[in-house]
Amino acid sequence: MRYVHAFEEGSKEQRYLLGGKGANLAEMTNLGLPVPPGSTITTEACKAYMAGADKLPDGLMDEVAAALTALEEKMGKRLGDEADPLLVSVRSGAPFSMPGMMDTVLNLGLNDASVNGLAKQTDNERFALDSYRRFVQMFGKIVLDIDGELFEEALTELREQRGVATDPELDADALTGLVETFKGIVKKEAGVDFPQDPREQLQYAIEAVFRSWNGKRARDYRKLEGIPDDLGTAVNVQTMVFGNKGDDSGTGVAFTRDPATGEKRPYGDFLVNAQGEDVVAGIRTTEPLDDMGKTFPEPHRQLLKVMDTLEQHYRDMCDIEFTIEQGRLFILQTRVGKRTAAAALRMAVDMEAEGLIDRTEAVLRVQPAQLDQLLHPRIDKTEQDPIATGLNASPGAAVGKVSFTADEAEAAAAAGEKIILVRPETSPDDLHGMIAAEGILTSRGGLVSHAAVVARGMGKPAVCGASALDIDVEGKVFKVDGTTVREGDVITIDGTTGDIYVGAIPVVVPEPSDYFDTILGWADELRTLRVRTNADLPEDAEKARRFGAEGIGLCRTEHMFMGDRLPIVQRFILASEEKEELAALAELETLQRSDFLGIFAAMDGLPVTIRLLDPPLHEFLPDVEELLVRDAKGELDDEGRTLLAAAQAWRESNPMLGTRGCRLGIIKPGLYRMQVKAILEAAIARKVAGGDPRVEIMIPLIVSEPELSLIVDWTREVAESLFSDSREGVSFLVGTMIETPRAALMADDIAKVAEFFSFGTNDLTQMAFGFSRDDVEGRFMSQYLELHLLAANPFETLDVEGVGQLVRDAVAKGRAARPDLKLGICGEHGGDPESVRFCHEVGLDYVSCSPYRVPIARLAAAHAAVGSDGPGASA
Amino acid sequence: MRYVHAFEEGSKEQRYLLGGKGANLAEMTNLGLPVPPGSTITTEACKAYMAGADKLPDGLMDEVAAALTALEEKMGKRLGDEADPLLVSVRSGAPFSMPGMMDTVLNLGLNDASVNGLAKQTDNERFALDSYRRFVQMFGKIVLDIDGELFEEALTELREQRGVATDPELDADALTGLVETFKGIVKKEAGVDFPQDPREQLQYAIEAVFRSWNGKRARDYRKLEGIPDDLGTAVNVQTMVFGNKGDDSGTGVAFTRDPATGEKRPYGDFLVNAQGEDVVAGIRTTEPLDDMGKTFPEPHRQLLKVMDTLEQHYRDMCDIEFTIEQGRLFILQTRVGKRTAAAALRMAVDMEAEGLIDRTEAVLRVQPAQLDQLLHPRIDKTEQDPIATGLNASPGAAVGKVSFTADEAEAAAAAGEKIILVRPETSPDDLHGMIAAEGILTSRGGLVSHAAVVARGMGKPAVCGASALDIDVEGKVFKVDGTTVREGDVITIDGTTGDIYVGAIPVVVPEPSDYFDTILGWADELRTLRVRTNADLPEDAEKARRFGAEGIGLCRTEHMFMGDRLPIVQRFILASEEKEELAALAELETLQRSDFLGIFAAMDGLPVTIRLLDPPLHEFLPDVEELLVRDAKGELDDEGRTLLAAAQAWRESNPMLGTRGCRLGIIKPGLYRMQVKAILEAAIARKVAGGDPRVEIMIPLIVSEPELSLIVDWTREVAESLFSDSREGVSFLVGTMIETPRAALMADDIAKVAEFFSFGTNDLTQMAFGFSRDDVEGRFMSQYLELHLLAANPFETLDVEGVGQLVRDAVAKGRAARPDLKLGICGEHGGDPESVRFCHEVGLDYVSCSPYRVPIARLAAAHAAVGSDGPGASA
Repeated sequence: MRYVHAFEEGSKEQRYLLGGKGANLAEMTNLGLPVPPGSTITTEACKAYMAGADKLPDGLMDEVAAALTALEEKMGKRLGDEADPLLVSVRSGAPFSMPGMMDTVLNLGLNDASVNGLAKQTDNERFALDSYRRFVQMFGKIVLDIDGELFEEALTELREQRGVATDPELDADALTGLVETFKGIVKKEAGVDFPQDPREQLQYAIEAVFRSWNGKRARDYRKLEGIPDDLGTAVNVQTMVFGNKGDDSGTGVAFTRDPATGEKRPYGDFLVNAQGEDVVAGIRTTEPLDDMGKTFPEPHRQLLKVMDTLEQHYRDMCDIEFTIEQGRLFILQTRVGKRTAAAALRMAVDMEAEGLIDRTEAVLRVQPAQLDQLLHPRIDKTEQDPIATGLNASPGAAVGKVSFTADEAEAAAAAGEKIILVRPETSPDDLHGMIAAEGILTSRGGLVSHAAVVARGMGKPAVCGASALDIDVEGKVFKVDGTTVREGDVITIDGTTGDIYVGAIPVVVPEPSDYFDTILGWADELRTLRVRTNADLPEDAEKARRFGAEGIGLCRTEHMFMGDRLPIVQRFILASEEKEELAALAELETLQRSDFLGIFAAMDGLPVTIRLLDPPLHEFLPDVEELLVRDAKGELDDEGRTLLAAAQAWRESNPMLGTRGCRLGIIKPGLYRMQVKAILEAAIARKVAGGDPRVEIMIPLIVSEPELSLIVDWTREVAESLFSDSREGVSFLVGTMIETPRAALMADDIAKVAEFFSFGTNDLTQMAFGFSRDDVEGRFMSQYLELHLLAANPFETLDVEGVGQLVRDAVAKGRAARPDLKLGICGEHGGDPESVRFCHEVGLDYVSCSPYRVPIARLAAAHAAVGSDGPGASA
Repeated sequence: MRYVHAFEEGSKEQRYLLGGKGANLAEMTNLGLPVPPGSTITTEACKAYMAGADKLPDGLMDEVAAALTALEEKMGKRLGDEADPLLVSVRSGAPFSMPGMMDTVLNLGLNDASVNGLAKQTDNERFALDSYRRFVQMFGKIVLDIDGELFEEALTELREQRGVATDPELDADALTGLVETFKGIVKKEAGVDFPQDPREQLQYAIEAVFRSWNGKRARDYRKLEGIPDDLGTAVNVQTMVFGNKGDDSGTGVAFTRDPATGEKRPYGDFLVNAQGEDVVAGIRTTEPLDDMGKTFPEPHRQLLKVMDTLEQHYRDMCDIEFTIEQGRLFILQTRVGKRTAAAALRMAVDMEAEGLIDRTEAVLRVQPAQLDQLLHPRIDKTEQDPIATGLNASPGAAVGKVSFTADEAEAAAAAGEKIILVRPETSPDDLHGMIAAEGILTSRGGLVSHAAVVARGMGKPAVCGASALDIDVEGKVFKVDGTTVREGDVITIDGTTGDIYVGAIPVVVPEPSDYFDTILGWADELRTLRVRTNADLPEDAEKARRFGAEGIGLCRTEHMFMGDRLPIVQRFILASEEKEELAALAELETLQRSDFLGIFAAMDGLPVTIRLLDPPLHEFLPDVEELLVRDAKGELDDEGRTLLAAAQAWRESNPMLGTRGCRLGIIKPGLYRMQVKAILEAAIARKVAGGDPRVEIMIPLIVSEPELSLIVDWTREVAESLFSDSREGVSFLVGTMIETPRAALMADDIAKVAEFFSFGTNDLTQMAFGFSRDDVEGRFMSQYLELHLLAANPFETLDVEGVGQLVRDAVAKGRAARPDLKLGICGEHGGDPESVRFCHEVGLDYVSCSPYRVPIARLAAAHAAVGSDGPGASA
């Protein structure tokens, strides 16, 4: 096996052998572009180094020497030459980009002799000495692992001695002394003399790069990004060119298209008489690429040509690093460039029109997760510091006047004010205030607190659990870190970041572009997975439909029991005899019927999956603790005490695992019958009115087939009696959530009575892990992720390894028992691209997600269908 | 296929074809025993009847007629004969006993004519008429489905008319009128004349028995007992014999051995001049079987011979129904007899000694669940009514004086009193009182409340959730339904039934017999599954070892953090800087070390699995609600407010799914290090003292391999540093609970770092079903079981279908990754016989259960190993 390949010998396909940088350098070399010559030491050498207990493989240095000799011949210069020395850079280059993680050594080849040759050749002693001291410094820090601060301190001391403020003011004499000081630091700290032999320098540097592959930061980064540890890194040894040799030199970065907007025009920054690190450091102001034509007409013309060549060749926007050394253009690096979501959309559409790529490729060019930034209002730019930061509970930015109660928020909104509802936490009682507000801010509660879940469902910005806020609802004021905010004061919240600002920060409301619609249209042609939405209100359903939702996958009915209906629900709960219970249910039925009618209208012709009531009854009763405290203070009347007794009776130790879902339906059988009746009555009314309602009734929290059978039987009974009474029928499906592990395990049995499954992956995740999302996200999730005890937050990205087994097996068992079983998912994972891929792979029919994530899911479904992208792709 | 088999044609092996009763009648007939002749209509006829939409299969009645003719010839009598009629009984007989579920018709063949023949033959007109009216009544009720009350009312009316108090006082004249009245009821209610043709009567009766197979009660019973619906029932048509023909007649029930004690002696009851129903009704006092020898010497001698024949033939204790008709013995039925646990043990040992059965058979003769009644103190017999009944939270009976606080209970117990601790509910603060008390009674909390779990662990009787009790702790009194019980009053609680009595009820403390030890010794020779115990205290460990425990499968450490250690634990929780935290941990370490030393001593030479701390921190803090109420009343000082803040901070929405187990260990890393150190220090001390500690350290609530790896690494670090410091080492295993569904799903990964798995099937069940045991058992479990939505309470008997899949797969994956992986179970299922069978079948190494259930598990493990017993046996 040969470890060293000259650039002329490689190509861009050899990323795994040559690393990303080496492969692109080879590609450009072979395209005839002006790349400084050099060669790449392959990742195989790195692997051999690691396998051999950190020893360079036999023969490697011989190959390196041979390549160097060839390079010296080609350049007509020799490493370490006293008269005209060749200098090289030694850069790592892994198969996948690991920015800032790996090591680079520049100016290699300088020593006490060749520094003079460089001075002579450039006619610039100061430049040569400065290059040398930088090399010693870099070599000491990176190769010999010496604390970089020591060099910086020596430099600072020298500036003080010389009474100058900046490094460029240090003259050659000062720098000569500095080089000696630096060599002294090396000797003292590393216990070796700074190596004068360039070949020794080179061997040290190669080993340092290989070592850096297994440095802690690099390993952590790979773990995070899912890059395998055994890939290894390549090393590029390349002739140095200098952009800092005078005003006929310079350096810059260029993009073949505008990475912010996607516009087709050369874009970039340029700096005269500078090296690449100066551009990155941002100390000097760069000039735009267009202006380079005036000062460097020929290199500019050449660069534009290179850019065109690269874009045609890579068929994508390229990001290029270049240097002009004494009028001569060199290309140091290229790669496919990063871009904003808006730019990604525009470039994809444009390139398809230009014939550069096809539609499938265009769709793949936009990352689904990127779309999120295009869908929510966002803070444009601000210099202002936030007064506090909470949890980013629901994305988007909102500006408004502070209201501390739902009633006040509603009243102020009715009067035309924009309102931010600020509460310690929200409860069902606050729903009307949340509907009225622009955004919600709470000081307590996590990412699945009432406020967070409801806000996400409404697509409304929310910051939750901002525990630094000391909210005094009665006093209508909150304090945080010395700042006092009163009712009516304007604040801005950013639900994307969790930041909270005093005053109105300018907010940008993105307008989905034609590019957006085009790409999503193409995505729809590619995908096989349907995309539905989770929506409880007609407005949300309409919004989602505009975003391309193909039905409702989850219509929760619990919100229909809140607000001004709470007293009726409480009458139902408190009823001491059947008559009262039935009377309360009858009232609810009338109200529910009109809820469903609105939803069927909004989703006419598309399937609507309605989940029967899920939460435990105590959610409809006041808080026990609040009542207990009021009782202790003697503030409760008889009614209050009745409510307290009921709240205590229905309270649960672990509500997540308690009397909810179908369990409640079974011990209160009138409830589900009422809901089924209201649903079917609404469907009949819609049908009679000429509409096309597509009803799917979903039973939550099933653990066994007999449990589901019982409720399916009730449902059919209600339907039969209703259809015979009203002499009109509608067809409908009855199915179940698969959200307990046992339901997944018993899917074959359950599919005998269920016409569809909808995987409730939120609860499935909670139960499979034994994680109460409310409790664990705030308490230890971040620590678990930092320690890599979990690959990802399983509430954000479906745990394919664990929970995924349950889903996969349930799909197989369910389909075996009922081949036409309809399969979907309605957990929050339905809007996560990686999870959407999994859903496609296991063969679900649809995913369902919140309205704002519908476009993301559509695009992710297309990516999954093409199957050529992202980690875990295997379809 | 032939549907009718004469008794001579069958055998006891044909239970499925002839039903249990028919098979035994055939067997006895062929043994030459004096069985009244007859024949059996097979279960196949019943199946054909059901398959044919309730129509008797073609040819059946022809076969029945032929069999009847044969019977008439054999008996020399004819059905319906005016002079000397043959009478038959028609009895159902299913393959499995369904007591009281199915129908029987006696005296069939009587009509207006044959009643005279019977009168003539018996020279007893009254007897004949009474038999006839009984037949009409039974036929009307059972065959024609007429409300039985109508006949009873007519009878009562007649008694009143005639001015008599009892039926025997009604003379022949009165009975003649009654027969007509009954026939009138039949005509009015069923719309048909009472059939005079005996063959018609017979056909009706056969159809009635077949119909009764699918009656609601029978179907419910079968569902409950797991008897398949498609077995069908047989029908036995047998010559009637009469034990009520005078003082030379009689009837009785005999057992070949004493079913209460197991003693080898004939045992039974006998009644002169009576039919079987009179024995059952218990109106007349029976005489013991021994006395029958005086009045009926020859039949008695014959009966003893029959009993001997049957016991030798069935190789088991038989239960026999017999009748003497005018001096002649008839055997009507036999079956293997039911017996008490004590009798089962003695019979099994005796029969082995007699050579009747071998040791394996002897072990199988005792049902594991039966042993429970032998292990706990129990109420002997009482006429007294309980004042209330709560949940049977921990079995056994206890008598003592009431104490309302743990401190008073402790003080009184120290003064020599026997105490029942009565609390609304218990908390960790009450532990010392629970240790001091004989039994625990609470008015709140379910079967997994603190009181219930702790009491079961201690093997101490407890009745929990007795909600009828109104307990006034400050007033030192409780009231229930008009009764007032004060501190110091004596009460008796029965944790086996949940009953609560005022005063001291005599309690029997069972003494395990030699028979017990013999059978369990034999069981130990047969079983391959090891049996360990769950024990947290040295006393419990010693007790369990006496019961045969082969180690500790679960030593919970949380109790070691309670009682007088609570202030230290609270210092640890409230610590604001690391120094304080470490100081509190150091104090705990010293205490824990001596805890572990005691346990290692008690289990010397046997494995001890110690689980690191599992419960969430708020369990060590006071109740939030109590503090809030006190705060509202202005009763809290600064310390109280600090505790309130901590309790609020650590409280969780769903503690079952919260920051507990290894999650707590990870965010408070000092805690587990401290525990590991204390365990290993104790083990070293024990070893140095010449003992043989076998340490297994168990990490709870793992969901992923990296999580376990982290803690295993800590454990090894602590061990290495300790062993090198103390220059002494002990070997130990580190393993994990498999109690989250995800851990089971990821068992292959987890087994890479775990040296053993212990299935925590309590939590696994809670999470797989999404059932919080605390919440669901009181709220809907009984309803679920009544509605057959679940086959059994999954917290009592492991859900083999659902949760069992997780266990089975985890065993397979775990063993594949680590062939010598040690596998056990430590949920409460470890003491449930059916669950033990499952554990054996899936190949676990051991089960672990509470001390009192160790013998049950040993016997169940033997049954499982033999594999020839109980539902689900397949090994």
